[in-house]
Amino acid sequence: MDVVCVGSGNVATHLAMALKAAGIRLIQVWSHTFANAVKLAADLEAEAIADISEITVDADFYIISVKDDAIAAVCEAMPAVKGIVVHTSGITPAEALSRFINHGVFYPLQTFSKRRTLDFKHVPLCLEAGNTVIMDTLKAVALKLGSPAYEIDGGQRRILHLSAAFACNFVNHLYALGDLILGENGLDFDLIRPLIMETADKVSAYRPLEAQTGPAVRGDEKTMAAHLEMLKDRPELAQIYQMLSNSIKKSQG
Amino acid sequence: MDVVCVGSGNVATHLAMALKAAGIRLIQVWSHTFANAVKLAADLEAEAIADISEITVDADFYIISVKDDAIAAVCEAMPAVKGIVVHTSGITPAEALSRFINHGVFYPLQTFSKRRTLDFKHVPLCLEAGNTVIMDTLKAVALKLGSPAYEIDGGQRRILHLSAAFACNFVNHLYALGDLILGENGLDFDLIRPLIMETADKVSAYRPLEAQTGPAVRGDEKTMAAHLEMLKDRPELAQIYQMLSNSIKKSQG
Repeated sequence: MDVVCVGSGNVATHLAMALKAAGIRLIQVWSHTFANAVKLAADLEAEAIADISEITVDADFYIISVKDDAIAAVCEAMPAVKGIVVHTSGITPAEALSRFINHGVFYPLQTFSKRRTLDFKHVPLCLEAGNTVIMDTLKAVALKLGSPAYEIDGGQRRILHLSAAFACNFVNHLYALGDLILGENGLDFDLIRPLIMETADKVSAYRPLEAQTGPAVRGDEKTMAAHLEMLKDRPELAQIYQMLSNSIKKSQG
Repeated sequence: MDVVCVGSGNVATHLAMALKAAGIRLIQVWSHTFANAVKLAADLEAEAIADISEITVDADFYIISVKDDAIAAVCEAMPAVKGIVVHTSGITPAEALSRFINHGVFYPLQTFSKRRTLDFKHVPLCLEAGNTVIMDTLKAVALKLGSPAYEIDGGQRRILHLSAAFACNFVNHLYALGDLILGENGLDFDLIRPLIMETADKVSAYRPLEAQTGPAVRGDEKTMAAHLEMLKDRPELAQIYQMLSNSIKKSQG
């Protein structure tokens, strides 16, 4: 199987490198920024493409992993290839690729950072395809990567993407706010790293509603008032504190 | 060293069991609810005490691990013991124990759930004491437990406690909201468990500000608008979404 990688961001890079590691041949890389294509192509032992219209029509699998806003323009500019074309977006419909006879979605439900290596066995792949032949190919690729694979339609995928905003993006921001509060008081983030790991690890065994701890779920108004008093010079943090505490109280009702 | 455990909640139970496992003798357990004292005492091979005034004056170490609101009343009711008396609260000043000649704070910066076992090497202990003799004893106990120990004054401890509300209590609630969104759409929480683990694991190596991903940090207004549209029947969740997205945008500025 010959693969073309369209894009060179976090997802494109991780996915392409994992495919290569799984013994799949990457033949071309295109990126909006040619220098990035050159860099990733070198790592993949593939060819860097400057002009998107020069993408080969002979590959078996094309992965479009660019910003959601750029998917339409990228599709327009690509040649009308016959191989399977997938995008990796959580929010863009599969129909965005309808220009290609064989298309689907290959959405990795994970958070990627360039500097961090990630074992694809911890990357659930949400697959969508118009027919079983394409779906079977997507599943075969997932199997090569060692990833758990799920058939997920476009509506479900958007729900997963939204849920991930809460359970990943917003969660990381709360870590950042915790770090900010510590740093302003000369305390090291290391102190709460074990707490962060245990909080995540707990919900590997329990549902989060059962795992809830802290003053809001105990109805400990005195502690909440003390916390809010400590945040009196940080009205934005106080507002977040109040809103999430209220939400905890309601969710346990 | 003979230890008395005052309280039978999550923290009291985990701490007392860990002390026992470390070869330290628990001799008495008191609890507001006698049945709970009986149960924990049985596990500890200690004596359950119904009347708090009957706590022995001969122990070396007394751990008060009750609700913050109850600490003052518990102290009043206890005999004026000479051994070291500590509480385990993140928010209560050490001075709350000033009735006892030898007192301090033994605050475990971790989230405890009764059904979950926890290795105390992952429980940072925040220690406070009025003199070095008491501090040395607290450190010796921490060492027995295998826990990292930090000398933390009352002001710092309150900051840690507040930071933990963000990085643990609120984080778990965001997991719960993610789970809620999935459940209402017939999707399983299992799908986002790997994402949750990776999000936490990432900040074991990086600072959360560097690790931030998602539409808010990318300035992807279209995706945020799509998410908010999906939340149009859940105004509370939409409000949390909007507030945390705005906060992410600001924090990266």
